[in-house]
Amino acid sequence: MEKVLNGIWKLRWGQPEETTPLALSDVPPSKDALDNLGSAGIPPISTNDIQIRKTARGLKIELPLKADEQIYGFGLQLHRMNHTGRKKVIRVNSDPVADTGDSHAPVPFYVSTAGYGVYVDTARYATFYCGTNLPKGASAHQKNKQKAVGTSEIELYGYQKAEGDRSVVVDIPLAQGIDLYFFEGPDIKSAVQRYNLFSGGGTLPPAWGLGMWYRAYSAAKNDDVMRLAENFRQDNMPIDVFGFEPGWQTRAYSCSFLWDDTRFPKHEEMLEQLNEMNYRVNLWEHVFVHPSSPMYEGLLPYSGDYEVWEGLVPDFAMKEARDIFSEHHLRYFIEKGISGFKLDECDSSDFVHSNWSFPDMTQFPSGLDGEQMHNMLGLLYQSTLFSAFKKVNKRTLSQVRASGALASSYPFVLYSDLYNHKVFIRGVVNSGFSGLLWTPEVRHAQTAEDLIRRIETVVFSPHALLNCWRIPNPPWMQVDQEKNKQGEFFDDFERVRDICRSLFETRMSLIPYLYASFAKYKFEGIPPFRALVMDYPDDPNTFHIDDSYMMGDSMLVAPLVSDESERKVYLPEGRWWDFWTDTQYEGGQWLSLKPALGKIPVFIKEGSIIPLANPIENVKDDTVFDITVKAYGDNPRDTYLFEDDGISFNYEEGLYNWIRLSVKADGEGEMLRSGKYQGARYQLIDWIRVR
Amino acid sequence: MEKVLNGIWKLRWGQPEETTPLALSDVPPSKDALDNLGSAGIPPISTNDIQIRKTARGLKIELPLKADEQIYGFGLQLHRMNHTGRKKVIRVNSDPVADTGDSHAPVPFYVSTAGYGVYVDTARYATFYCGTNLPKGASAHQKNKQKAVGTSEIELYGYQKAEGDRSVVVDIPLAQGIDLYFFEGPDIKSAVQRYNLFSGGGTLPPAWGLGMWYRAYSAAKNDDVMRLAENFRQDNMPIDVFGFEPGWQTRAYSCSFLWDDTRFPKHEEMLEQLNEMNYRVNLWEHVFVHPSSPMYEGLLPYSGDYEVWEGLVPDFAMKEARDIFSEHHLRYFIEKGISGFKLDECDSSDFVHSNWSFPDMTQFPSGLDGEQMHNMLGLLYQSTLFSAFKKVNKRTLSQVRASGALASSYPFVLYSDLYNHKVFIRGVVNSGFSGLLWTPEVRHAQTAEDLIRRIETVVFSPHALLNCWRIPNPPWMQVDQEKNKQGEFFDDFERVRDICRSLFETRMSLIPYLYASFAKYKFEGIPPFRALVMDYPDDPNTFHIDDSYMMGDSMLVAPLVSDESERKVYLPEGRWWDFWTDTQYEGGQWLSLKPALGKIPVFIKEGSIIPLANPIENVKDDTVFDITVKAYGDNPRDTYLFEDDGISFNYEEGLYNWIRLSVKADGEGEMLRSGKYQGARYQLIDWIRVR
Repeated sequence: MEKVLNGIWKLRWGQPEETTPLALSDVPPSKDALDNLGSAGIPPISTNDIQIRKTARGLKIELPLKADEQIYGFGLQLHRMNHTGRKKVIRVNSDPVADTGDSHAPVPFYVSTAGYGVYVDTARYATFYCGTNLPKGASAHQKNKQKAVGTSEIELYGYQKAEGDRSVVVDIPLAQGIDLYFFEGPDIKSAVQRYNLFSGGGTLPPAWGLGMWYRAYSAAKNDDVMRLAENFRQDNMPIDVFGFEPGWQTRAYSCSFLWDDTRFPKHEEMLEQLNEMNYRVNLWEHVFVHPSSPMYEGLLPYSGDYEVWEGLVPDFAMKEARDIFSEHHLRYFIEKGISGFKLDECDSSDFVHSNWSFPDMTQFPSGLDGEQMHNMLGLLYQSTLFSAFKKVNKRTLSQVRASGALASSYPFVLYSDLYNHKVFIRGVVNSGFSGLLWTPEVRHAQTAEDLIRRIETVVFSPHALLNCWRIPNPPWMQVDQEKNKQGEFFDDFERVRDICRSLFETRMSLIPYLYASFAKYKFEGIPPFRALVMDYPDDPNTFHIDDSYMMGDSMLVAPLVSDESERKVYLPEGRWWDFWTDTQYEGGQWLSLKPALGKIPVFIKEGSIIPLANPIENVKDDTVFDITVKAYGDNPRDTYLFEDDGISFNYEEGLYNWIRLSVKADGEGEMLRSGKYQGARYQLIDWIRVR
Repeated sequence: MEKVLNGIWKLRWGQPEETTPLALSDVPPSKDALDNLGSAGIPPISTNDIQIRKTARGLKIELPLKADEQIYGFGLQLHRMNHTGRKKVIRVNSDPVADTGDSHAPVPFYVSTAGYGVYVDTARYATFYCGTNLPKGASAHQKNKQKAVGTSEIELYGYQKAEGDRSVVVDIPLAQGIDLYFFEGPDIKSAVQRYNLFSGGGTLPPAWGLGMWYRAYSAAKNDDVMRLAENFRQDNMPIDVFGFEPGWQTRAYSCSFLWDDTRFPKHEEMLEQLNEMNYRVNLWEHVFVHPSSPMYEGLLPYSGDYEVWEGLVPDFAMKEARDIFSEHHLRYFIEKGISGFKLDECDSSDFVHSNWSFPDMTQFPSGLDGEQMHNMLGLLYQSTLFSAFKKVNKRTLSQVRASGALASSYPFVLYSDLYNHKVFIRGVVNSGFSGLLWTPEVRHAQTAEDLIRRIETVVFSPHALLNCWRIPNPPWMQVDQEKNKQGEFFDDFERVRDICRSLFETRMSLIPYLYASFAKYKFEGIPPFRALVMDYPDDPNTFHIDDSYMMGDSMLVAPLVSDESERKVYLPEGRWWDFWTDTQYEGGQWLSLKPALGKIPVFIKEGSIIPLANPIENVKDDTVFDITVKAYGDNPRDTYLFEDDGISFNYEEGLYNWIRLSVKADGEGEMLRSGKYQGARYQLIDWIRVR
């Protein structure tokens, strides 16, 4: 066991594969930030407690798991939050329909309430058995234990998980060796911080990325786009980012990566108009390169040996492929002002109506096979496009449908074709364990109420995205697809629209708070959205909570889904205030709530200082936020805003300020700037004390 | 390429694994029956058209797939019938929730409309890509092809399967070599026949096995059992087999394999009473051996290195384990008159609320690992218990929840915890491609109508099973579980019961017809239940039909599900008669039907001769069936009944008769017995001509 960085140890066994996420990563760890975290100086797991051996299948690793440990992690797990006693396969797959481990972004990393994290550096479809079985003979002494006869599957099967001290067993196919990384605690949050800093720190989005996003009708043409864009401004609907779906290209499935002159005859003029209306433009794409693309010939030798949708699968583990691809995007799009991309279909699919994507035994010139590329493609794709933005010192927030290990520094947010609202909420809860960002995007709704509840959730999520690719008119006009296409709107669409606007404005007002949370993600590795157990690891009430989460250090969010009119929320120990009404609640208990429409349950933790901006319609490069600061409770804690130009990487050279908001001994509020950034992005309007 | 039997070729590449289904099979091929089938004398696929190579993952096999070939098979695939353009993983899993290939009984065998079958002899989780992807560059010429922009996932993704001549690619993890078997046609049916005969022929159940089965309430005690049993006889409900669920043992999950004296104080008396009432008894179990079982100590050294539900996983690839297990069953149960078993949970589960079963890297003393044992366990379990019955010359029909390759001779019928009625119907359609038997068992229902529709389906399926383990009173009294437990019955339960009785009687009347169909399964390898495409391989209308099937050579069955009041049925070319009404229909077209409740659509093919028995309540060892024979159309084909003692393996020594039913030139019906069996099981009552 070798210490590699402060609080991080590595154990190498045998000869690891050459193509692993760490070997292929281009992001160095945040060493200084890691040095700043405390460390007890000893590995969280002793080498004596670890068994590794070769099997006919590959490698078998056994790690200790004590009776009371709770296990979390494994990436974007949408169907379960607590993996104790469960089996998880680390395999990329879109539309994961059951709790198998298959995920848009599976990560071979887990954390424990015992206060450590384990990362297994492989791109293979490894399987983690988190205390599922006891070894033969372990129960021989149980022969006389009584059991009632069940009359349902649950009674018969469940909760038959192995009890007592046991193991996490990792089964890695084909590997002849492995590198294991151990991240010290003392708790889950610090283990996750170390993992994120090992990954280069979290991502800091551009400030505009935290505003509202709207992706337009897939079949939209120039006029349709302008109509929507003007409409939003006329109705004062805050929208920062305007997204184009597949229709902007001459070819999609697979892609040409060229503007279509039929649907968008003078696209440069259109982009200029959108820019003047203060929209940032995001373009949909996926990685498969159609024969008609200018990139096709160049990429042909640097691609896998199978096609997908008639297109090439570029091998982004080869520099040549990365250069061709990022160069095209730079020249054709980024230098023309495009703010970001939506990287679709870099996952794979076993679970939907048609098969697509390349087989597991595809051969890539870099040496990766299809299995490894499936687990790596999202990561390599993000890295390739991110490098283009870095080249021109321009930050982005973009989207991606697959990711994996060590990804926290990539400015891409995950999304899915799944749509169950509770599943979507669970994604927000879970993504924070593994350095991922996830959006519970809003695409359509059964009713206006469903639309509003979903918008509530997405506005209190990492990425406030309305993905309206299936409807020509905004959803607050009509949620039914056919009627929307026919122009048959709600009788009361203005009412619906106004509630939506109000929620969008709430999102805008929270941008400074969110921006500071993301800065902590960058500099300290603290995930901005995370499960309650991360903040309250000693409170067993939080161990299975998968329907509420912390947004930043101060806000507990508990979304409601539309087919329920009430829900229970657990508030941990301490006092809490309702975000909307300032009503006070005693924590350490479960509450039953019937939230009004438009008022998603959000609670502010005692001692918080919350900055709230006057809402604006979009974040310009020179925007200054007018801040009202609310301080809750008797002894508010010092809180910080992060201030920089909001759009470049200059902060990496030290060009930023931390602005300390505090309540002085005499009860007066204070705002103190310190740092090297010369501009001012925040102006203090008012202080409010809430007790 | 080496010819191994008439119409069957083998290709060996490299060094195959030692533990494969064929290596572990104890059933010799039916050589004589194979010799009786014609053969063109050349392999259906040329060695030149097959590529096999080693990869980092294992083996990659490419087999030719022409543009118009349709692919079927892969075992009990419940979610899809036609696998052309699809990916299928051969992996045992209970509760398969999506069309991935995961199945209770996945089989690495497929057939093609081009008229051949391919079997890949492996117990690994092989993946078959049936023409899913083209090789890189194959579409380079397509650069100018136009495509519309989609506005739904289906429009974007699907039907993007590779077109033209391509490959079936098989990806076998870990293997260093493989044996491939090719089964000649000239059509699907004959390829399947050869595969089944290679497997030792189909199974011939005991005659009583084809009657009605009722599995009782799981928590039933002695009195509950007798009450139900007497009730059926009083109400003249035909029931042959009475099934006990987990409650009969002292311990279940895992199992002791001992009668519980508390719930069943004098179980031998009870069994005698049931026997006097002409019930055959079937006992539930699963393979995991609890510490309190008499078998535990003996099996300890011959088990896998992980427990499941505190019990051992016996290694049935070791003779010692097989002997201990079958000996116990012989001595404690079979010799005491038990007619069969229900072999539960020999599949595995990734998809339900709790994980169970052993990990893929479990080590077994025979050398099998967990992955291989998952794919083999059902087969080895069936073989182990079947050998006990063979030892005492007693046939059984039993149940099993996992199976696999080369299984047609095992007298076990598959079932599932899934319950969508259309999925269940598809199981009947598909099982015939791969030498498997499947029951769309009836467990519960939403309404009385749902109950009746499901009973219609199960009565026209391989195994007419009501699995009422969750309710103390029969379902025709009350389908709602809580009300059933409370004794709150339907107001009109007698009406419901009478419809059920009528359907049960229909089943009983079909036993001679079914028995003859199973005899053809045994002697010729023709599956008794099969997809329409197997009988009409040149009719493209049948290529995707997964909701109707052939039952025997003469009956086309098209079940209705309760949430639909009408359905379409395709009748192939020729004339067809309604089974219930003798109404005539012209084939070669789709019909729209609104079947009355209790009258599942069943059509008799032109030229059929159907034996219909007077219904009886149960099949005794000395039962003689009173047959009315119906001959349809102008030129009825000669048809055969199979006659033997119905309960032993004596037919294997030639002690059986074929009884030819034919219509002579003068229009008179004739029944001609020939063979060595001395008894008479059929008595001709009447002939009916239907034109």
